[in-house]
Amino acid sequence: MLDFNTIINNIHSDLKNEVVKGVVASYIPELSKQDVNHFGIFMQHMDGRTFMAGDANVPFSIQSISKVLTLSKAIAFEDNNLWTRVDVEPSGNPFNHLSLLELENGIPRNPLINAGAIVVADILCTQFKNPKADFLQYVRDISNDQSINYNYKVAASEKLTGYNNYAAANLLKSFGNLHNDVEVVLDFYFHQCALEMTCAQVAKAFYVFANSGKCVNNKQHVTVSQAKRINAIMLTCGFYDESGEFAFEVGLPGKSGVGGGIVALLPNKFVITTWSPGLNAKGNSLIGMQALEQFTTQTNLSIF
Amino acid sequence: MLDFNTIINNIHSDLKNEVVKGVVASYIPELSKQDVNHFGIFMQHMDGRTFMAGDANVPFSIQSISKVLTLSKAIAFEDNNLWTRVDVEPSGNPFNHLSLLELENGIPRNPLINAGAIVVADILCTQFKNPKADFLQYVRDISNDQSINYNYKVAASEKLTGYNNYAAANLLKSFGNLHNDVEVVLDFYFHQCALEMTCAQVAKAFYVFANSGKCVNNKQHVTVSQAKRINAIMLTCGFYDESGEFAFEVGLPGKSGVGGGIVALLPNKFVITTWSPGLNAKGNSLIGMQALEQFTTQTNLSIF
Amino acid sequence: MLDFNTIINNIHSDLKNEVVKGVVASYIPELSKQDVNHFGIFMQHMDGRTFMAGDANVPFSIQSISKVLTLSKAIAFEDNNLWTRVDVEPSGNPFNHLSLLELENGIPRNPLINAGAIVVADILCTQFKNPKADFLQYVRDISNDQSINYNYKVAASEKLTGYNNYAAANLLKSFGNLHNDVEVVLDFYFHQCALEMTCAQVAKAFYVFANSGKCVNNKQHVTVSQAKRINAIMLTCGFYDESGEFAFEVGLPGKSGVGGGIVALLPNKFVITTWSPGLNAKGNSLIGMQALEQFTTQTNLSIF
Amino acid sequence: MLDFNTIINNIHSDLKNEVVKGVVASYIPELSKQDVNHFGIFMQHMDGRTFMAGDANVPFSIQSISKVLTLSKAIAFEDNNLWTRVDVEPSGNPFNHLSLLELENGIPRNPLINAGAIVVADILCTQFKNPKADFLQYVRDISNDQSINYNYKVAASEKLTGYNNYAAANLLKSFGNLHNDVEVVLDFYFHQCALEMTCAQVAKAFYVFANSGKCVNNKQHVTVSQAKRINAIMLTCGFYDESGEFAFEVGLPGKSGVGGGIVALLPNKFVITTWSPGLNAKGNSLIGMQALEQFTTQTNLSIF
Repeated sequence: MLDFNTIINNIHSDLKNEVVKGVVASYIPELSKQDVNHFGIFMQHMDGRTFMAGDANVPFSIQSISKVLTLSKAIAFEDNNLWTRVDVEPSGNPFNHLSLLELENGIPRNPLINAGAIVVADILCTQFKNPKADFLQYVRDISNDQSINYNYKVAASEKLTGYNNYAAANLLKSFGNLHNDVEVVLDFYFHQCALEMTCAQVAKAFYVFANSGKCVNNKQHVTVSQAKRINAIMLTCGFYDESGEFAFEVGLPGKSGVGGGIVALLPNKFVITTWSPGLNAKGNSLIGMQALEQFTTQTNLSIF
Repeated sequence: MLDFNTIINNIHSDLKNEVVKGVVASYIPELSKQDVNHFGIFMQHMDGRTFMAGDANVPFSIQSISKVLTLSKAIAFEDNNLWTRVDVEPSGNPFNHLSLLELENGIPRNPLINAGAIVVADILCTQFKNPKADFLQYVRDISNDQSINYNYKVAASEKLTGYNNYAAANLLKSFGNLHNDVEVVLDFYFHQCALEMTCAQVAKAFYVFANSGKCVNNKQHVTVSQAKRINAIMLTCGFYDESGEFAFEVGLPGKSGVGGGIVALLPNKFVITTWSPGLNAKGNSLIGMQALEQFTTQTNLSIF
Repeated sequence: MLDFNTIINNIHSDLKNEVVKGVVASYIPELSKQDVNHFGIFMQHMDGRTFMAGDANVPFSIQSISKVLTLSKAIAFEDNNLWTRVDVEPSGNPFNHLSLLELENGIPRNPLINAGAIVVADILCTQFKNPKADFLQYVRDISNDQSINYNYKVAASEKLTGYNNYAAANLLKSFGNLHNDVEVVLDFYFHQCALEMTCAQVAKAFYVFANSGKCVNNKQHVTVSQAKRINAIMLTCGFYDESGEFAFEVGLPGKSGVGGGIVALLPNKFVITTWSPGLNAKGNSLIGMQALEQFTTQTNLSIF
Repeated sequence: MLDFNTIINNIHSDLKNEVVKGVVASYIPELSKQDVNHFGIFMQHMDGRTFMAGDANVPFSIQSISKVLTLSKAIAFEDNNLWTRVDVEPSGNPFNHLSLLELENGIPRNPLINAGAIVVADILCTQFKNPKADFLQYVRDISNDQSINYNYKVAASEKLTGYNNYAAANLLKSFGNLHNDVEVVLDFYFHQCALEMTCAQVAKAFYVFANSGKCVNNKQHVTVSQAKRINAIMLTCGFYDESGEFAFEVGLPGKSGVGGGIVALLPNKFVITTWSPGLNAKGNSLIGMQALEQFTTQTNLSIF
């Protein structure tokens, strides 16, 4: 039987002293202050056991990891209607993300690229009565943790430099694929990205997707079929232009964020979260990618 | 000797009854109210003679024609420094104008596409003390006509639906190629586009470029060399994705606007303006293009 | 316990009378002669059981399904060296497949698009002594069936109209990413695509990838890790611009061909092959996609 | 009155000792043998005078300059029917020339990019009885010089490394926009590019376009209107991605070739040819561009 405790702690020990740790994201001023030496791992097994190493209980900015959480709520609200406004195909290459939006008439390639997540945010702005408060409550509920909160300084910082997201939102608006005001949607979007959670909290939140839609409290948040589809989207689109590489090297559905977090899961088996703020050239946590690669190599656990 | 009066009036008579007149621009609500049957021609010869037909003295929204006027002032301010922020190459294809901006790191292909004109507007916002008032005064001066003004309703209308321009401005901002606030620059930009002028006034204004930089009052506004370069840019970039076609069919430097105006000129010989609000599929005045084609065919006057 | 026999036969009965069956591929003259009414399903379970319905033993042109077979042999030869010449990312959009090759300096996005498969064919032309004969023997061996053969008329037909593949091969050559002559590589490539196999034979061949690299005769053809990676590539890249959709709707690694075949597999569980020659707008078998979707919905078997 | 002799000789003296001369084209092995120090200028005035400096009578490989000559013959054969198979718009950017061909369904952007010139070559292969011999005779006739010939070694060298042109021709074929065999058309195309001419001979050949379609022997080869249109295409498309720059800096219709030649003309006034084999980053002769820029600056002669 696999000794997850030893495996995780060995990986942590091996990698924490790596000299090359990647570069902390600098385009959001608040994020650039992160210490590159943070490194945490948390594993939530479906059988109830948990394993951890390092800074697994230090909160970090989850950034794009939040896109899976908003997606899950939008799917719960809209089910397949959602797919008239956003596609489910990988985004291809990084050279022209707005171009693809132009070529495809304002339908984002998938809900995990920025443009797609902005459409999802727009849907939540329509469906929720108090979007920011209601979404926060949803995250707290699925994570079974009422202490989770937005970091308002990070949200404000993102807004100040979020020109690219303003460009995407306005382009969506020009195609009629944004129903609420640009400012309203982006205010929500900047807050969802500024959610602050620990590795442990993220693992609890994503337990829903590994557990056929039921959270740790056994409440059904999305259907079995919806949970599978969210996992499929994570696998094909979760790591920007490195999604194929991640499927190839790690072999698990997952999602990364520029705050340095990565969450991955094996349906019905476990969720694992890593956090190390240094990023590789494609915007994914350098040490986190290596940790997950080692984990699936050593445990031989993957969906393939 | 050419009888311009007869030529222009014959062209006007022939075309004014054309059944297929193109489609009035609808994306700016205020512009969509234009009567498609308006049709004016005005020719200003360098020898002082003027010729006209139809609605040559009815004001219309000059829209993108204004981009040449702002460009001329930016060149007067910055001379060749301008070209570090915007290129002078034709824009290629219409499928991906924002994509090109991404591929080329925020340097617009030329100053006559929207993104390039927004950079030019940004320069004027920096250089002018009171950008909107000062630019209006410049236009009045080169046209020798103090009655020219903005149509504030059109400007407000453009702002309300200008999502694509907001997308472009924010994308420029994300690349560091917009120095003033997006709102400030676009407010200026929407006003310049909302300038209202008659065919006669536009011809007077563009007299500067046909006359080696000197306006009708003989004042030098741009240098001889700058005037030539502005003409070169009009020839290669003045008609969106139909620039090659216009050079090929008409053979004159010129600029069109979605208000239905077109201005073209033969250096040291004449300026000619047409206005007919119906547009062809590429966004240029359908009847205006035909009028200018017939004019250069009948007079055999072109730069080639 | 799931009654695969009933499930498969019910799906076959339901779908065989569908009026809308898609369009038989016409760009290869020989393929266009196929009867759109063919429809077969074959399931090979890892426990040794097999299930079938309809034309499961009628041979068809496997076309792009062959790309997984050549890939597996190239990986066996080159292991990770292969990835210096071809990437593993989804290809994004269909508008510009040669463009991506240009943008990315002759490195195809993945081995399952044509350009990537041509690079893989080039590797086999270098590694095999008698490429066509040796590759055929490999396919016969992993399928445990010495009767499998090329359809030489189809190969000749593809060559006559394969201009797009000639374009891709020459573009690769211009980037130095094709080591053998264009003619040599494409001759091999057109033959691999012209392999003729039944649903049953394809299922036997792909048993290798579902069975950690061991074929039905228990011989190890690729390593456990290589088999997983091949499955990962099928999942992210196996269905052209519909790969995300297939992962989303079906949730299995798989590969389609324009001959109308589709093969999909659940590691350590089963392989399933369908064949129906009518294609949807994205070039995948219309009825086959529906059959697999129904199969995973009814059995609740997917990697997610 | 301008002293062309002094101006041309001064420009030649100034530039011949420039240290930075650009890089000789290396992708065609035969061309890479050129001495970078060659530098010639030849001016043919419409009034019959000629002026020259340096290597004006040394033959060089005219390469893409030949595209204007084939275009002129295709226009003579087909007139406006030509434009159903090739467009007249500038090609935009260099990143994706084959992509544009894909996006625009096999219609090249203009006849001066490779794909467009290959379509033009295809037309001549259909119209001429003995394409290579007949085209050579046409060039000799318009130049009034029976000594002009192909360099067969260069033609063979281009064929050996012309993978990119094979890619373009096959892509055109896949869209049905190439009527003759790829090999036949490219054999013709590689020979036209391998024409060897001196600055003086090129200037004589292009006299046709400056002289309203009549060659030095006063024979009409294209109509007045066709000559104008060829000039318009040279101005908007003659210098790849530097066409706008050339129009902006030089202000004359012209065409460059990777052999280091450039020809430019002012209608009804003169033709001027330069040759210096070193190229700038965009593939145009570095010293030649500077020479023409100085020439139009000093003489103040341009179409603008």
